[in-house]
Order: sequence, then structure tokens, then C-alpha cells
Amino acid sequence: MSLIVCKFGGTSVGSTEKIKNVAQRILKYQEQGHQVVVVLSAMSGQTDKLLGMAADVQEIPDLREMDMLLSTGEQVTIALFAMAVKAAGSDAVSLLGDQVRIQTDAMHTKARINKIDTELIQSHLDAGKVVTIAGFQGVTLKGDITTLGRGGSDTTAVALAAALHADACEIFTDVEGVFTTDPNICNKARKIDMITYDEMLELASLGAKVLEIRSVGLAKRYRVPLHVRSTFTENEGTWVVEEDKIMESMLVSGITYNKNEARITVKKVPDQPGIASKIFLPISDAGILVDMIIQNTRESHMTDMTFTVMRNDYARTMELLKKVARDIGAESVTGDESIVKISIVGVGMRNHSGIASTMFQIMANEGINLMMISTSEIKVSCVIEEKYTELAVRALHSAFALDKDNMPTEEE
Amino acid sequence: MSLIVCKFGGTSVGSTEKIKNVAQRILKYQEQGHQVVVVLSAMSGQTDKLLGMAADVQEIPDLREMDMLLSTGEQVTIALFAMAVKAAGSDAVSLLGDQVRIQTDAMHTKARINKIDTELIQSHLDAGKVVTIAGFQGVTLKGDITTLGRGGSDTTAVALAAALHADACEIFTDVEGVFTTDPNICNKARKIDMITYDEMLELASLGAKVLEIRSVGLAKRYRVPLHVRSTFTENEGTWVVEEDKIMESMLVSGITYNKNEARITVKKVPDQPGIASKIFLPISDAGILVDMIIQNTRESHMTDMTFTVMRNDYARTMELLKKVARDIGAESVTGDESIVKISIVGVGMRNHSGIASTMFQIMANEGINLMMISTSEIKVSCVIEEKYTELAVRALHSAFALDKDNMPTEEE
Repeated sequence: MSLIVCKFGGTSVGSTEKIKNVAQRILKYQEQGHQVVVVLSAMSGQTDKLLGMAADVQEIPDLREMDMLLSTGEQVTIALFAMAVKAAGSDAVSLLGDQVRIQTDAMHTKARINKIDTELIQSHLDAGKVVTIAGFQGVTLKGDITTLGRGGSDTTAVALAAALHADACEIFTDVEGVFTTDPNICNKARKIDMITYDEMLELASLGAKVLEIRSVGLAKRYRVPLHVRSTFTENEGTWVVEEDKIMESMLVSGITYNKNEARITVKKVPDQPGIASKIFLPISDAGILVDMIIQNTRESHMTDMTFTVMRNDYARTMELLKKVARDIGAESVTGDESIVKISIVGVGMRNHSGIASTMFQIMANEGINLMMISTSEIKVSCVIEEKYTELAVRALHSAFALDKDNMPTEEE
Repeated sequence: MSLIVCKFGGTSVGSTEKIKNVAQRILKYQEQGHQVVVVLSAMSGQTDKLLGMAADVQEIPDLREMDMLLSTGEQVTIALFAMAVKAAGSDAVSLLGDQVRIQTDAMHTKARINKIDTELIQSHLDAGKVVTIAGFQGVTLKGDITTLGRGGSDTTAVALAAALHADACEIFTDVEGVFTTDPNICNKARKIDMITYDEMLELASLGAKVLEIRSVGLAKRYRVPLHVRSTFTENEGTWVVEEDKIMESMLVSGITYNKNEARITVKKVPDQPGIASKIFLPISDAGILVDMIIQNTRESHMTDMTFTVMRNDYARTMELLKKVARDIGAESVTGDESIVKISIVGVGMRNHSGIASTMFQIMANEGINLMMISTSEIKVSCVIEEKYTELAVRALHSAFALDKDNMPTEEE
């Protein structure tokens, strides 16, 4: 007998019919002798509806009250789900964040989990019940309801799996798993059977949308085996596991692209100590996140500073920098919204030199100019013109042998 | 400075626009120097929507999960309301039943309040906040969410007013107050300025829909002055108070009618000990409530047993009684759904004889036949044919001087 935490997102529980289907699926787990904890999101559309009402009432909604409001979404689904399990002939009980006691800090709308009590859950499991728990929510020491922010239900599921020492955490979603790249632009994209936490972390941070990065980090930390799979088929999905669980790693496991960034260059900045902070301090003070940063020495005592920000922060950042450029005596500020960041990810890179240069060679062969480059131990990212996105992804997918079946590539 | 508990029903908070209006109204109370606790129902339509989803999922929904589901409705309104108060420039905090700690028994969907903690509320009030509390819900000792059943938000408001020793409990609704009778069928109906708890209890139990009987009983027990008034005007409504607060009582304060009952007669029952229980035990075992009961001795050793049940239990009761009638050797079972119960209510009756006979005389004058009669210390009820409803109500309203302004009548 094993203990499995299953998480279903909003589209998987978007109607009473779908909730009943999920109940049927969970009953099969029970019949196989497993104990099951089911974490649910709000029905799709519900959170947006609540946000719309809040916006009607208060321009910048109070965060504590926002959490009070939003947490109702998951409460509805767990109640309906528990009813559906009972209607199907088994037993179930629904629990809210504050009933379990998923204790968080008091950072409303983006709280972090400090501690989870497991006794109540365990006693219901031992009584043979399916325990369904509201995702996305917790409670402060004082008893206020909090929510965990974007991807919060994934985080709830992984944290529960860690606290309960579950055998696995299964994330049910509307895709079959994690793919070598986006199937929408590369028809040779394949589902990955197994991937390491580190690779998944890079893929998630680089634009793969299937898992929220925070939950992957948590899974890594507590060594929770993650299984990303489809709500709508019985197929195995992608297992995200520790590196030593995968016998031979791919050089490159996946290729991602991210069109949400824009590039900004501050030209001819006087090259003197402290100049970088004069540029980036006002940006971070405005709450704008900077991703890649490159500094090129241009000529003596002059440098160009190039970096990327989220595309929806672009206009605001440009506005801000015009003033900054004047203050520090830079020549001009230019920007480009039509860029894409293409990344290759693979733990195999650790032990293999030449992966980055292979990537640059492939891009050059296709006549694609690299605007920015950044690397980490297990990934290489290049910023290129947005119009080359598909061309670049397909060329890399083929060159790194991801078109073939899921076996380690030979050394080149 | 006084402390007032205000309760607004679902139609009063049925949209974000209406919620903002309620916030404006409450701010005026604050500006006048009052401390205010605001109890809210779910937005109109929301509870029905949730019930519909539950019915989709489980034929007879699990009661614990039903409470988990339904309690979300009030949670949404209090969060939005707290935002609205803040948007209007004051401070507010929303609290759920389990956060306040409105402790109830574990009778899900119809729980009774055992105890209310007031410290948290009081500390927020002392900090100058409007405290808004979810109506209709509580929590068990074990931490399960409960709901209080029909009219639960009125009960929450009165119970809070009692626990907080509030100066008044104001029930805001979509009518101006309690009327001498239904203005829809008697255009001379007038709003009552003051009425006693006992009169209000009778009126509520006899069909006046403005206040739930349970909350009136609670108000009486803890001597909470109740003020029933309109959400949509500034007019004074009806005060429900202790008898000694009203200098001179009306002989008759109000006239109600109830079309929700049906009459059943079991004819020629052998008149022997235990026969009544043989008829009524199967009915109560089936969860059917019996209101009036009359037993007429017909001839020696034979009796007719006549009683009323709710009209939506009529078919089921008739079905049940056909079998019972055979078993006990009764001649037949007949029934009539086209009846109405007309009642007159007034504490003045206590000290005046002849009120009942005046009523019978008025009905006789109009040619209305009385099918059943029942009386209590402060009310007289008659069952008549439904088609005479309007005629009877208007005749009684006029005869007991309710058409005139609100002064004690002279003795007749």
C-alpha cells in the first residue's frame, strides 16, 4: 500500500461532470489499495470571476480580504468532490487549509508555507477515507486565511506529499506530460519519460508552463517524486525525480522559448564604479524584474549595458531609464520587444564540454544572429529575433537528437 | 456611543453595486459615533447555484460537505464588503464563523449556536474597525463548518447582538418593516411601529415572512431590541421589543394568512385508546410536520380526525394514510389542498375576552364557513376555503381597527 497525493487543476474540475470523472479516477487508486490525498484548484473561471468582483469594489483590493475572497473557490470544489466520492460509493472528507493546519507566513496573496500538521489527514486516511484538501490556501498563526500565489495548488500538493512522506505526488493537467519542446511549433516534440528536478527547474523558469517552478523546488528539496500526467488519459506522463534515479542522462533534455521578455540597451555609459547600481536600483525600486544582463566595454571609459525585462514592464522601464540616462550621462536608451529567449537544458551538460558551442554553430548555420547569451551549469540561453523562434527550436530539437526516441545520445 | 449589529440579506448584497451602497450606509453609522458589526448573507442566487451543483453530484448530498459548500457564499460577501468599506475610506475586517468562534452543535445544515467568543470582535471594534461577520455559519468543537439552516443569518445577527450586549440588532430587508397584514392583498395594511416579541413570534410562525421565528425567539430570550427596516430607505421600520416597552398594546396587532397547508380528515375512526398515535406516529416517522389537529366525536365509538400538514407533504401523507386507515379500520381518508389559515395576533387578547368570538362573527357576516379553529393566549387561527383569503383578511383588518392609525382601540 502506498500513499499518493494527487492534484487536479481548474480545467480538470471545471464542471460537476468533470468532478465526477475525477472521483471515478480516484476510486480506482483506492481499489488498487492506495491511500489518496486529493488537492484541488478552483473550478476554471471562478478565480477570475472573484477577481472581477473585487476590482468592482476596491481599486487596489485589500490583500487580506482578497485571500478571504479567493479561498472560497477551492472550498467549493473540495466539497463537491467529497460528495462525488461518496455518491460513487466510497468515503471522503474535505479539509480547508486552516483545518489541516497548513500554516503560512502572513504575506497575503503570496504566502509561504511554514509547517503542515498531518495528524488529522492521517487519521482520516487510516479510516479509509479519500482526503480532499483545498489547494492554494493556508492560515497564519493568528488564524487569517492566506493564499499561496500563482501555482499555489501545485505547491500545496508537493508540500503535503513531503509532510506526509507520500510515495508520489501526481500533478494532473491538460497535457500528457513535459515535452522536449513545445509541440505547437515542433511536431517532432516528444513526451519526456523522466527528467531531473534541476532540469525541470530550468525548464519551468525558462517558459515551460506545465509545472510552477516553486513546486519543483519544493519537490527537489524534499525528494518528492513528481508525476506530471493527463487528467483525460490513463497514459504515464513525465516523472520528475532525483538525478541518481535516471541511469543515463540526455545531453539536452528539452528546449524552451520565452517570448515574454524585451531587451533594453543603455548606450555609451561612462564606465565608472557604481554605474550598474545607478541603472538597476531605480528599476528594482519600481518592482521590475531584470532577467539577463550583459555589459560590453565599447571603447575606453564607455560601456553598453544590455538587459531584458518582462515585456509588460517594457514601456515603464523605458520611461524610467530616459531620466536615468540623462542623470548618468549615457548617450541613449534603445529597446526591442521583438525578441525571444531560446534555451537548451540538460544535466548531461555538466560532464560534457562543447554543448554551448554546438548550439551557437547550429544557430549560425541557420543564419540566426545571437543578441545575448547566458549560461548556467545545465542550460544555455540565447536571445534572438522573435521571428526565428520556430526555425531555431526545430533546428536545435533535431541537432540534439530529441527527434529520436528517448535514449542517451552518443558523444559527438 | 452605542454598539449596533446590522444584518443585510441576500437581495441587499446581490451585486457589487449594492454591496458598495451598504458600505456607505454603515459609514454613516460610524460617523455618528456608533460601533458596528455587520452580518451578511450570501449574494442572492448564490446559495441556489451551489445547491444545484451539489444536486448534480450527489442525489442526497452529504450534510457536512453541504455546509462546507454553502458557507462559501457568505465568505464572498463579507470579503467584498470589507473591501468596499476600505475603498470608502474607513477600516474593516471580515471574520468567518470559525474565526469569531461561533460554536455550534454538529447538526450539519441546521446547527444550533452553543457559544460565541467576543474578544476578537471587540478588539477589532475598539481599533475602530467595522467588523463584518459571515451569517448562517458556525463551527463545531472539532472544527467542522456548520450552517444554521433557514433564516440562519438573522439568527447569527441576534446571537451576536446578545453575546456583545449590543444596543440593538437591525435587520435590513427589502420591505419597510412588519405590516398589520400583507399589503399585497389589503391596501390599508400599515407598517407597525412597535410590536412585542410574543406577537412577532406568532406572526412569524403564522406566515409573516419578514423575520425568521428562531431569531425572534433568541431576541426575546436575551432581550435584544430588534429593528426590522428597509435597506433601500432611511425610514424607521418596526421595533420588536419587550412588552413593558409598549405602553398600550393593540387588541389585535396583525393579521396573517398561510396558504402552505393542506387539510386531511380520517373519517370514522374507531374511537379507542391509542388510536391517535396509530395515525400520527407513521406521519412523524416520515418526517412530516403536523400543524393543527382536531378530533370530532361523530357517533358512539366513532370519531373523525382532522389535521393540517404542509402542502408539499400532502401527497405523501395521503399515500401513507391510505395504508394506515385500512390497518385501523377507518372508513376513508379525504383531503383538501384549497385551504388557508387566517390568524389574528395581539398581546391585548390576554386581558380581553371576546376577541375570538368577534372574529367568528366577522367571518359569519361575510358568509365564510370555518373548517378548523385553534387558539393560543395571543392568537386565534381559523382554517377557511382558500378563495375567501382576501375577503377575510380585509374584513378582519377593518373590524379590528387596523385600518386606522396605530392607536389602541377602544373596548367594544
